[in-house]
Amino acid sequence: MSKFWSPQVKELVPYVPGEQPKIPNLVKLNTNENPYGPSPKVIAAIQAELNDSLRLYPDPEGDTLRQTLADYHSVKPEQVFLGNGSDEVLAHLFYALFQHDQPILYPDITYSFYPVYCGLYNVEGKAVPLTDSFEINPEDYTQPNGGIIFPNPNAPTGRYMGLEYIETILQANPERVVVVDEAYIDFGGETAIKLVDLYPNLLVTQTLSKARSLAGLRVGFAIGHPDLIEALNRVKNSFNSYPLDRLALAGAKAAYEDEEWFRKSCEGVISERERVTQSLEGLGFEVLPSKANFVFARHTEKSGEDLAQGLREQGIIVRHFNKPRISEFLRITIGTAEQNDALIRGFQSL
Amino acid sequence: MSKFWSPQVKELVPYVPGEQPKIPNLVKLNTNENPYGPSPKVIAAIQAELNDSLRLYPDPEGDTLRQTLADYHSVKPEQVFLGNGSDEVLAHLFYALFQHDQPILYPDITYSFYPVYCGLYNVEGKAVPLTDSFEINPEDYTQPNGGIIFPNPNAPTGRYMGLEYIETILQANPERVVVVDEAYIDFGGETAIKLVDLYPNLLVTQTLSKARSLAGLRVGFAIGHPDLIEALNRVKNSFNSYPLDRLALAGAKAAYEDEEWFRKSCEGVISERERVTQSLEGLGFEVLPSKANFVFARHTEKSGEDLAQGLREQGIIVRHFNKPRISEFLRITIGTAEQNDALIRGFQSL
Repeated sequence: MSKFWSPQVKELVPYVPGEQPKIPNLVKLNTNENPYGPSPKVIAAIQAELNDSLRLYPDPEGDTLRQTLADYHSVKPEQVFLGNGSDEVLAHLFYALFQHDQPILYPDITYSFYPVYCGLYNVEGKAVPLTDSFEINPEDYTQPNGGIIFPNPNAPTGRYMGLEYIETILQANPERVVVVDEAYIDFGGETAIKLVDLYPNLLVTQTLSKARSLAGLRVGFAIGHPDLIEALNRVKNSFNSYPLDRLALAGAKAAYEDEEWFRKSCEGVISERERVTQSLEGLGFEVLPSKANFVFARHTEKSGEDLAQGLREQGIIVRHFNKPRISEFLRITIGTAEQNDALIRGFQSL
Repeated sequence: MSKFWSPQVKELVPYVPGEQPKIPNLVKLNTNENPYGPSPKVIAAIQAELNDSLRLYPDPEGDTLRQTLADYHSVKPEQVFLGNGSDEVLAHLFYALFQHDQPILYPDITYSFYPVYCGLYNVEGKAVPLTDSFEINPEDYTQPNGGIIFPNPNAPTGRYMGLEYIETILQANPERVVVVDEAYIDFGGETAIKLVDLYPNLLVTQTLSKARSLAGLRVGFAIGHPDLIEALNRVKNSFNSYPLDRLALAGAKAAYEDEEWFRKSCEGVISERERVTQSLEGLGFEVLPSKANFVFARHTEKSGEDLAQGLREQGIIVRHFNKPRISEFLRITIGTAEQNDALIRGFQSL
């Protein structure tokens, strides 16, 4: 700490991202990346932009990509907001769309960046406990609040909630913005984007880092009523006019123009997820039902921390959260068939 | 405005970036981009990263690029902070390194994003008038403040201030962070980075958007004492862990590995700047002495607004600010010799 720090920076408790080790040949199942690469059309589209035009600023509004996303999701371009990964979108919406004089509600077990954003903007966050089966109970989101946010499927649990439950939360909070963070929606869930024209208080965020295999490109977006999008644009244009570079804009657009690649990639993950789940259950794990590209599992006898450490010694990395209620669980990204085989062999040896 | 907006978003006055028109064959001299493209080594380095690895997150710390910048500027990697363009770096430092209970000082004629950042974080900004010759007077920066920021060379004036004047400001404010925004430093100025080990209150920001011809890639950085960098990292890790994508990290590194390309590019801009300055003076313009990749000029008889409009009708775009003290000026980016010829011909016809 230094005398030059602002008082608020002294209070921050930053987010700790999953480890990105620089060791080759790791079986890296700790940050929910897609085991399959992006579509060759994405590579070709970036290739086509890789020239002298890099000397020029990108389109600050990302009009072409917003139109692509609008068409894909059957909304209007003014209902789409782009960000440098969905994390940037989330940061801006905590600033722009939550009322800061009442607590922001989110599950007690969820994406750990939410309380960090509360700290960044000096807003109270209130962790609402999941049920004993690690589910969100919509009835718990009727208490006074300044806004609500949860992932669907939730992370790190992987549990999915049907749209009818989301509608219950939306209807109970007509004066507050409800954010559904759909980072993992494409692995078996149904998107709430189809509800945005019914609920002016609904904002849905998605990312290209998971199902679209572009974690390395940093693109995320939000879809909602134009009034909500306008608020996000006001913050974005008070922070950084050009958050998406020319190559990211081009690659992201192409990712939505290869539906077949996308579907096959998701199907591959889903099918491997079912196989990994069965194998883990056979090894004595309790595995929460997952609609994400990871599973959340605890062994009935062995310690989560010991298992994570044992895997690490074999060059396999999964994520372990040393937190209340979930310290015995491991969050395991679904890898390629080969990686998943290595994982299962790894557990067998422990 | 909507009932869902937070009170603070209602108060924002966002930045308005220079127009990025989608009309082909424009002579675009309005956003200070480099007329020359990036080094072929940059293209090759991005090419080498353009593969399946895009499915993986980038290095959140950008260690390789930070090491490259540290070596280039003879500092330690822990003195380097990376951002998604220098605008993101500026946003974070307004949060992290300025004391918010006293006014932030900046020139009255300067980068118009500074007051926007003050608005974003609800800090008072105080515009300190430039002298009649549009220079920064260091003596004006001895008043009580929560932090000081100015570009060197200043924009949109293009006027450069020698390091001895910057030292005067640093010495007068030992308890406050002084930020020198060096977006345009490579076109004839001397960087204050050489002072960072002498002044723990100095932070220097630079961008790859100007002299490095990479406005389309969105990379900027700050260099200063490790304590200042740590504060910036705390904010960054409370906002977005991965602001730079894999391609930007690779391309930015390569931009510092082709010194010859960089020097030739800067020399080309400087030589054209001198030629444009002489031509404009010959046409009856007063041109402020510039060390940037643009000139700031007013005609002794003709109106700035009319001239800008007259050029626009010929497909030539320059920037005109309808603001006090500078409404008769045009900010004209230095283009290629061909573009500059078109500009001069354009003025001759008006």
